[in-house]
Amino acid sequence: MELTSPGTTVGVVGGGQLGRMLGEAASPLGIELIVSDPTPDAPAAPAVRDQVVGEFDDEATVQELAERADYLTYEIELADPDILEAVGEETDTPVHPHPETLRTIQDKLGQKRTLADAGIPVPAFRAVDSPGALRDALDDLGYPAMLKAREGGYDGRGNVPVESPDDVEDAFAAIDGPAMVEEFVDYERELAVMGCLGADDRRTFPVTETIHEAEILRETVSPPRAPEEVRERAREVALDVLDVMEGCGVYGIELFETGDGRILLNEIAPRPHNSGHWTIEGCHTSQFQQHLRAVTGLPLGSTARRAPTASKNILGDVDGRARARLTGIETPLSTDRLSLHWYGKREVYHLRKMGHLTLVAGGNADSESLLADVRDAAEPLTFQAPD
Amino acid sequence: MELTSPGTTVGVVGGGQLGRMLGEAASPLGIELIVSDPTPDAPAAPAVRDQVVGEFDDEATVQELAERADYLTYEIELADPDILEAVGEETDTPVHPHPETLRTIQDKLGQKRTLADAGIPVPAFRAVDSPGALRDALDDLGYPAMLKAREGGYDGRGNVPVESPDDVEDAFAAIDGPAMVEEFVDYERELAVMGCLGADDRRTFPVTETIHEAEILRETVSPPRAPEEVRERAREVALDVLDVMEGCGVYGIELFETGDGRILLNEIAPRPHNSGHWTIEGCHTSQFQQHLRAVTGLPLGSTARRAPTASKNILGDVDGRARARLTGIETPLSTDRLSLHWYGKREVYHLRKMGHLTLVAGGNADSESLLADVRDAAEPLTFQAPD
Repeated sequence: MELTSPGTTVGVVGGGQLGRMLGEAASPLGIELIVSDPTPDAPAAPAVRDQVVGEFDDEATVQELAERADYLTYEIELADPDILEAVGEETDTPVHPHPETLRTIQDKLGQKRTLADAGIPVPAFRAVDSPGALRDALDDLGYPAMLKAREGGYDGRGNVPVESPDDVEDAFAAIDGPAMVEEFVDYERELAVMGCLGADDRRTFPVTETIHEAEILRETVSPPRAPEEVRERAREVALDVLDVMEGCGVYGIELFETGDGRILLNEIAPRPHNSGHWTIEGCHTSQFQQHLRAVTGLPLGSTARRAPTASKNILGDVDGRARARLTGIETPLSTDRLSLHWYGKREVYHLRKMGHLTLVAGGNADSESLLADVRDAAEPLTFQAPD
Repeated sequence: MELTSPGTTVGVVGGGQLGRMLGEAASPLGIELIVSDPTPDAPAAPAVRDQVVGEFDDEATVQELAERADYLTYEIELADPDILEAVGEETDTPVHPHPETLRTIQDKLGQKRTLADAGIPVPAFRAVDSPGALRDALDDLGYPAMLKAREGGYDGRGNVPVESPDDVEDAFAAIDGPAMVEEFVDYERELAVMGCLGADDRRTFPVTETIHEAEILRETVSPPRAPEEVRERAREVALDVLDVMEGCGVYGIELFETGDGRILLNEIAPRPHNSGHWTIEGCHTSQFQQHLRAVTGLPLGSTARRAPTASKNILGDVDGRARARLTGIETPLSTDRLSLHWYGKREVYHLRKMGHLTLVAGGNADSESLLADVRDAAEPLTFQAPD
């Protein structure tokens, strides 16, 4: 194992904020990134060696990445597992996590089946292919429930709540494709664990509480406001999930904590995840550096938490689309122990993820007060409205 | 004050490791860097938006930086203050720190005179322009002493010790140009303070102990192994030094602690400095982010130390020049709380700065044990010898 210059090159399908933060983490390790993204000058572009402009599932684009890189990975589930697998084999370029894992995760039904088969606690679910099948399933699971498109959803897109039998027809029409329905989990809290598979090692980052609104992540805090035994159970479930995953890398493992203290698996992302952004300042190794260590076969780093840490997303608050101009930044920039992360997106629209704030505790601040403080610091932030 | 995309662009004269670490720090703030460096694909290149290839003191190069940037700064004292000043004025591009400060600092004699005039404690010194003048000066200052070229020295180059009257002729011949001689300070420790001037604010990072060998920085530890009153005095001297500096930015302020607890100023660098690399992990704001905040007029960040922190440079250990291949990296990469920084230099030679390690304390480790631990982690590191 050695460091050279130029160093190891990693090709990344996707050049959004995750690619950008991977780029920021790569440089100290002497790793260079080439990202692919359909948007020219994507958010990652200024932080990486080069960008190939091309669709996430375009074979020639992935081929170019592979020819220029020592390893392939992806920061978006819209990557195509068949193309990644074929190109990886053809060019003898390792792909991490394994395309088979991406294939399983892309299909929400296949993901749940695989996890349930492995004994991991998941909400009750059924495959449904018609309004009639949905109605039958809900006779069994009960109302309300969540109807989910099997493929392509993120940040709540592709998920439709079904409150009563009257909603069945419209909900099924809204999905308009292969679907599954899942019992509605009346959770106490949502939790997340960033897990990591190295060549011969597995680690978990400390459990994080995630706070969503309209199915979009708004805030995180670690440690969560949950009893120690619940955190330990969350960690155990995450380790069980890692057993099912194939290939190296970081996995975002989203969980429900039920009112009676059980842990149910919600969803998995085979990549760094919004619920782990706090690790940049909050842990000795960030999820981004950890992912790169794992993908390139370096030893995994410590996942220990340096201090209690909260984060808050900076989301678009404008109607329509506008050039991104975030005002009110003096307050967060002047707040001690607060870090600002800007993703460099040219345009803002309602609820688009534009950046985030991370606040680490000075003394022994509890999670409640950390969340209150990061909210206060974010209060003045607002985007200039479209002209 | 707002964040936009594309964001503020900073032109940096110099694209070495300081430019690279500035690039790593710029991205989260949405700041883009363009560096200039005579070496194509300089260390900073993969971490910044673009590199202009050109000498540090080439006017057309600086002109191009200015035309593409909102602010100009420099990470190497070989930048030319006259060109920076002229280009800055012509293109209406602010230059930070002020070229006049660079001019003063470049001339070691002018630097010492300015500081002495401002009442800052400095070692006794004299301007010398001939062997005779050197002999006269040393009749007064005593032997041993340090003869220094007025311009162009760094990492000990341009400094010649004069042990006795027999050395005078050879020492003067070795400098071969305008020189100054300085009393030899029999210091207890060397200390450094990274100071920072913002638009309407000044801050100091916590005092650091610096450990040199053959005038090249090897290790740092903060807090230093010095009494609290000595640290406080060092901080006061650093604040006095900042009063003399013009223009925004971070300044590396190198100090001697004498056996009787006095603080004497050694040298100033008008830029981020090796003695402040530990702030990346050790403080809430790194010296690199702080420099960019200062240069672009953003509020300064907290300089508080997160934990006691030690760093150790990774220096070339080969004879001759070779392609850089650092072996033994498993140990530092597997050491908890240790971060590796690789500078991406293609070639290694004896004592060239190739990277550094930073170790932050887990509990209440003292500075002595932190230094011992970072040395242990660096022990297996060695460069592959030239073929």
